[in-house]
Amino acid sequence: MSEIRNLINITDLSVEEIDELIKVADDIVENHAAYEDICAHKKLATLFFEPSTRTRLSFEAAMLELGGSVLGFSEASSSSAAKGESVSDTIRTVGCYADIIAMRHPKEGAPVVASQKTTVPIINGGDGGHFHPTQTLTDLLTIKRKKGRLSDMTVGLCGDLKFGRTVHSLIEAMLRYENVKFVLISPNELQVPAYVKEKMDAAGAEWKEVERLEDAMEELDILYMTRVQRERFFNEEDYVRLKDSYILDLEKLQAAKEDLTIMHPLPRVNEISVEVDDDPRACYFFQALCGKHIRMALILNLLGIKREA
Amino acid sequence: MSEIRNLINITDLSVEEIDELIKVADDIVENHAAYEDICAHKKLATLFFEPSTRTRLSFEAAMLELGGSVLGFSEASSSSAAKGESVSDTIRTVGCYADIIAMRHPKEGAPVVASQKTTVPIINGGDGGHFHPTQTLTDLLTIKRKKGRLSDMTVGLCGDLKFGRTVHSLIEAMLRYENVKFVLISPNELQVPAYVKEKMDAAGAEWKEVERLEDAMEELDILYMTRVQRERFFNEEDYVRLKDSYILDLEKLQAAKEDLTIMHPLPRVNEISVEVDDDPRACYFFQALCGKHIRMALILNLLGIKREA
Amino acid sequence: MSEIRNLINITDLSVEEIDELIKVADDIVENHAAYEDICAHKKLATLFFEPSTRTRLSFEAAMLELGGSVLGFSEASSSSAAKGESVSDTIRTVGCYADIIAMRHPKEGAPVVASQKTTVPIINGGDGGHFHPTQTLTDLLTIKRKKGRLSDMTVGLCGDLKFGRTVHSLIEAMLRYENVKFVLISPNELQVPAYVKEKMDAAGAEWKEVERLEDAMEELDILYMTRVQRERFFNEEDYVRLKDSYILDLEKLQAAKEDLTIMHPLPRVNEISVEVDDDPRACYFFQALCGKHIRMALILNLLGIKREA
Repeated sequence: MSEIRNLINITDLSVEEIDELIKVADDIVENHAAYEDICAHKKLATLFFEPSTRTRLSFEAAMLELGGSVLGFSEASSSSAAKGESVSDTIRTVGCYADIIAMRHPKEGAPVVASQKTTVPIINGGDGGHFHPTQTLTDLLTIKRKKGRLSDMTVGLCGDLKFGRTVHSLIEAMLRYENVKFVLISPNELQVPAYVKEKMDAAGAEWKEVERLEDAMEELDILYMTRVQRERFFNEEDYVRLKDSYILDLEKLQAAKEDLTIMHPLPRVNEISVEVDDDPRACYFFQALCGKHIRMALILNLLGIKREA
Repeated sequence: MSEIRNLINITDLSVEEIDELIKVADDIVENHAAYEDICAHKKLATLFFEPSTRTRLSFEAAMLELGGSVLGFSEASSSSAAKGESVSDTIRTVGCYADIIAMRHPKEGAPVVASQKTTVPIINGGDGGHFHPTQTLTDLLTIKRKKGRLSDMTVGLCGDLKFGRTVHSLIEAMLRYENVKFVLISPNELQVPAYVKEKMDAAGAEWKEVERLEDAMEELDILYMTRVQRERFFNEEDYVRLKDSYILDLEKLQAAKEDLTIMHPLPRVNEISVEVDDDPRACYFFQALCGKHIRMALILNLLGIKREA
Repeated sequence: MSEIRNLINITDLSVEEIDELIKVADDIVENHAAYEDICAHKKLATLFFEPSTRTRLSFEAAMLELGGSVLGFSEASSSSAAKGESVSDTIRTVGCYADIIAMRHPKEGAPVVASQKTTVPIINGGDGGHFHPTQTLTDLLTIKRKKGRLSDMTVGLCGDLKFGRTVHSLIEAMLRYENVKFVLISPNELQVPAYVKEKMDAAGAEWKEVERLEDAMEELDILYMTRVQRERFFNEEDYVRLKDSYILDLEKLQAAKEDLTIMHPLPRVNEISVEVDDDPRACYFFQALCGKHIRMALILNLLGIKREA
């Protein structure tokens, strides 16, 4: 049994720990029956102070598929927070009801504060513009499954790279593997922040910035598309001008490698044309499936549960 | 194992398939213990883009009673739809989390679109003013259980027959059985649409229209009451004038047969007086119970699960 | 098997029945494994016509921890109530879906009305300013566990004693035990109502009123803090003047007994300083845990389920 811990940020995990999670996620697929009741009598609380159906359902599906059960809330309006209760108090109380907690909160740092007040493991399911480590784990598992490795590849990241936390986390996580090159595809206004560039440089990684999807397509092994979120823009004009600039369609894909892996954290609006969905290189729904598997592995790890050999 | 299919419209099912569902629903009551864990490790997603507590809880109770588990959302505001995601994308993602999906959507046709994008069976739990096939299955099971047959009877349908989709579906479904007569009881403004009348004629069924509940009561074997929904009226004046015209009370019931079966899809407001609830002919809460049983049978059918003989 | 009953008010239970519930709650802790699947195939419906996350999650955790399952709704907006359905009809329908119902409703008396319309046991999870019996059971279990008895002690109740129903119920419940003295600590405007004073007198209990926490601290065995709810005040001015008058901090605690038990029904806003949380006398999170255990005992009792000896 491992020590009880939390997952707040992807960098809480060593490369070895991530490898271990990926191994368990793969074992879950191969030996599904061995996991069906492994979390019997365990309860997951999903505390979503901010709605995020996809993430919440992924956690819930993960726990149910392990034979455990689920309770919680899907938005703050129906929680005690509306009565002025602190996050710490809510978490400490729910720690009496559940064995593990997955939480999402609009305030950065809320999961850290929460984790200090309970002995129950906390999983950060997103805290404002800050961290979303299970998305990064999902992305890593997807890449590993499609490519068989996490090193030696060229990763293109496209769209809103300034505010997109999933992009920053993925870069940070991939920097720990050998020979990963990054191609950053975005309008000038939405380039990755300076601190991310510094990290790439400090790690000695090769990277470049381009403005158009077409300028990068042919060299990519991975293409990670992101949504241009209207709420991130400073004015409506910029949003309208830019939002369609980075739409992936079959025409743009003609220049791509045959084994390109197209990813997207979802939900998408129109940044990937639906005609791409049937292309074998489209992996974003497979990614959703990977998200369930890696959360299953994570829950088991934090609860200190392993299947018998 | 049957092929994986969906239930979008009641006419997707043949008379034989409906008979089979009714048979399983009855077997569930008779051999309840044999079904208690039959869906262990299976997950139902209830995706309600529009709230409908009764229908949602009926589906959830059905799945839980089969030993399966449930996840989902009860209104669109807390779903990814609020972020601009298409129904197809939501369904395809949830198809990674669940083994079967029951959905309700305000837009007609949404379940058909959804079913084209996932390999997981889709049950239409209501799409706008369009279809609501599990209500019709519920009604058929109720009639079968109370009368022992689905043929040879006179069915009265009362209230808003113009906009009431449950009424149209029930007529369509009952037309497939022998010698069913219909008495349509409604104000002129809310008569059944022409296409329903054409279907009755085409099937060679006997039918008539009357304006007052009293004009039909004595000949009925089934009385199906429906709510006059305020939102269906074009103006408030008409609503106020008509809403109380078709209220069933004990006085009106005096003319009825002793074995009349009174049905209502629920929720009711005041179209059936509460004094009627204790009359042995009141079957609308029994109908709610039938709704759970037929949904259990349907889930088993779509998942291709049968109890061992 | 006991008769099927409901829990509407704490006085529905005799002293012996409360003792029995406490005994089962303790047995649940001591022999946890014996209870893990004891409610398998049983369903709890949590019908919260008014949100109360804490109470709802406590009930749900209780049922899940007994191996049962849970369905329901967390606010009225997503229920049939919004369509004009009566509480009775909702309850009677849900009685077809679940084996036991825990409900919260803003209208006093709603659970009584509900219980008359269904054969399924109803637990009142709070009805307006009226009753909240599972909170009182929680309080009694907490006191019993910390003191080893429910008699022979001095209980201080602090804060809004006028509108605080949990306080009134606790006094009423404790009056049935020997030699319990009450110290009522509140501003003059928020003293306990006359009918509570009459009950204390009728029972021959010793009690007094003081205005300041400091005036009572040293003699207390139990200190029950309550929140001064903004919505209970007639005007904003009074709220601002009084809300900070009854804040418990480490300084005030210096005069207290070493084995004082500090309780609070939660959620708190600022009436107990967070610095008190680490004091061994702080029992309010332990109280949340007791809440789960006593609800487990209650569910078993109402379902007529006992563990095998």
